[in-house]
Amino acid sequence: MSQRLLHTPEGVRDIYGKEYARKLYVENSLRESIRLYGYEDIQTPTFEFFDVFSREIGTTPSRELYKFFDKEGNTLVLRPDFTPSIARCAAKYFCEEKKPLRFGYAGSAFTNTSSLQGRLKEVTQMGAELVNDPSVQADAEMICLVVEALRSAGLKRFQVAIGEVEYFKGLCEEAGLDEETELDLRAYISGKNYFAAQELLIERGVEEPYKGRLLKVADLFGDMDSLSEAGALTDNPRSGAAIRRLQELYSIVELYGAADYVSFDLGMLSKYRYYTGMIFRAYTYGVGEAVVKGGRYDRLLHQFGKDAPAVGFVMVIDSILEALSRQDVGLPAPEDVREVCYDQDDFSEKLKEVQALRKKGIPAVLTPRD
Amino acid sequence: MSQRLLHTPEGVRDIYGKEYARKLYVENSLRESIRLYGYEDIQTPTFEFFDVFSREIGTTPSRELYKFFDKEGNTLVLRPDFTPSIARCAAKYFCEEKKPLRFGYAGSAFTNTSSLQGRLKEVTQMGAELVNDPSVQADAEMICLVVEALRSAGLKRFQVAIGEVEYFKGLCEEAGLDEETELDLRAYISGKNYFAAQELLIERGVEEPYKGRLLKVADLFGDMDSLSEAGALTDNPRSGAAIRRLQELYSIVELYGAADYVSFDLGMLSKYRYYTGMIFRAYTYGVGEAVVKGGRYDRLLHQFGKDAPAVGFVMVIDSILEALSRQDVGLPAPEDVREVCYDQDDFSEKLKEVQALRKKGIPAVLTPRD
Repeated sequence: MSQRLLHTPEGVRDIYGKEYARKLYVENSLRESIRLYGYEDIQTPTFEFFDVFSREIGTTPSRELYKFFDKEGNTLVLRPDFTPSIARCAAKYFCEEKKPLRFGYAGSAFTNTSSLQGRLKEVTQMGAELVNDPSVQADAEMICLVVEALRSAGLKRFQVAIGEVEYFKGLCEEAGLDEETELDLRAYISGKNYFAAQELLIERGVEEPYKGRLLKVADLFGDMDSLSEAGALTDNPRSGAAIRRLQELYSIVELYGAADYVSFDLGMLSKYRYYTGMIFRAYTYGVGEAVVKGGRYDRLLHQFGKDAPAVGFVMVIDSILEALSRQDVGLPAPEDVREVCYDQDDFSEKLKEVQALRKKGIPAVLTPRD
Repeated sequence: MSQRLLHTPEGVRDIYGKEYARKLYVENSLRESIRLYGYEDIQTPTFEFFDVFSREIGTTPSRELYKFFDKEGNTLVLRPDFTPSIARCAAKYFCEEKKPLRFGYAGSAFTNTSSLQGRLKEVTQMGAELVNDPSVQADAEMICLVVEALRSAGLKRFQVAIGEVEYFKGLCEEAGLDEETELDLRAYISGKNYFAAQELLIERGVEEPYKGRLLKVADLFGDMDSLSEAGALTDNPRSGAAIRRLQELYSIVELYGAADYVSFDLGMLSKYRYYTGMIFRAYTYGVGEAVVKGGRYDRLLHQFGKDAPAVGFVMVIDSILEALSRQDVGLPAPEDVREVCYDQDDFSEKLKEVQALRKKGIPAVLTPRD
């Protein structure tokens, strides 16, 4: 027998027993939070035309997409994430709708990374997208829904770090940076590469106070004080508006009672071209990467022919489970299955017993006695 | 904008709104029945090595598999069904286990058919597999679980047709047919091609009474009388044992109170090499194909290195939904989402209102008044 027959490909796995029961518990808790916030479930295909996840739209490099062909010769792609598909649906089925639209989703997403990276290639994602609402209240709803969902799943120690790409863009604008320099600088700051950032700005002849302000961005994280500090750093209107919006966001998050879970990080600039305003990530102990990522992307739906603001997030269930397990968070045990044994001559009687249990909602099995 | 951006590939689709709410209701009802019968959820990867679904093991021809490559050059396949994956798991994680094992699963399955056939290429399947229990009680459990699950999902008018491949094999054996003739004859009988079957038997020189018996198989369907008729037709022990097993099966199904939903069809011989005993299919009005398929496949696990009997079924959720919709079966309406409108100055108050609703389990949204 080929060994391949028993093994799953690198980066994908079987989940069963107690571990899968935990996963289902977490999924159900998160799903219930999303449902209570009025998000409507939507299901899109596991694979779509390549164009939907192309460079202009998606955030996954083409080399990390699983590509294959249908019988008609079209290039198909296993979805690397759900957001482009939900944006496509919003544009296709709700093109003229102006009222806020709320969509929730859950399922597998796939990235064809190299096995050397040791990352999961199939993960279960769950998320929500709010279309047609540009307000800061909508931004706050996303943050607070994430906080509530993670808490309902049993996670206690986590932080949602919130950034705003407009703040940095305002600094770049006032410093007169060209797009290329802006993108390079963004990459250095995201990568915490302070010296490369400094060298780049000197090389491009960026003067003080602009140089100092741009380099300071990486340090602008923490509580509300970091926002005041960021606001005092510059008087350009774009950056100023971004700070005021975050301050307003915070006051709404306080109303929700979720302020303990949030902090700010203006140096959080990844997936920079995709997001257009607020950007956030939830981190927790025991997992290096963010367990939730989200933000505002007001230009994505335009790619599908609908001009509409949107804000959303995705939770990676597998990462949340890993965090819960590393943090030794106890979850309710799955209900035991009652076993009723039968002989050839008492089957009828035992069947009645089992049927009565099931009627009461108790899982039960009939096992031959031997 | 490319039209491809808005469209899904042929054979896959978006489901949202009321339709998806119906789908989720049906899925939850079916899942609950499977849970009450003590089946434990298991999740396997969406794609596996080609070998797992190869000709020797699977029931889907290679040309109908979606194949692609990982970065290491392995050929991967989107699962066309779950049974081989569950068999792999049973062999891998429970190799030495002798007690009955019950697994339940749900997810997408994929077949790369030609678009001209107009069939869905991605369907949601849900099913159950019972390993390590060779008894007729196990066979009956499968039938009765299917009946209960379909009824819980709102389906009223359906029939589970039950066959037994051993009956036909006994007739072939007593007639001295070689394997090739047996397979050809099986194909003609499954395809209701009586004349081709007759010609084949004449050509191969099959004498009476064997020829007549073999041709009669296609007519052996109906209630318990059809079993008596089939039993009277021959005295070979293999066919006789098959008939006695079906009669015993029926008496157990009666104990479950599910007898109204079953009938017999000894000419049901498809996927003949895969199944080793009982085989069944549930049919309902409004959908041509079976909405549930199942049977006993005592040799499948051997392919994965575990010698264990197994019986299982798969329900195609999309087909069940289509049937419910064609039969105009009303399902409980999804709960309405309460909309609470806010102004800039009453947000705090309206938020409290919404939070109170959510606490009571009522989905609610905050909408800016404009």
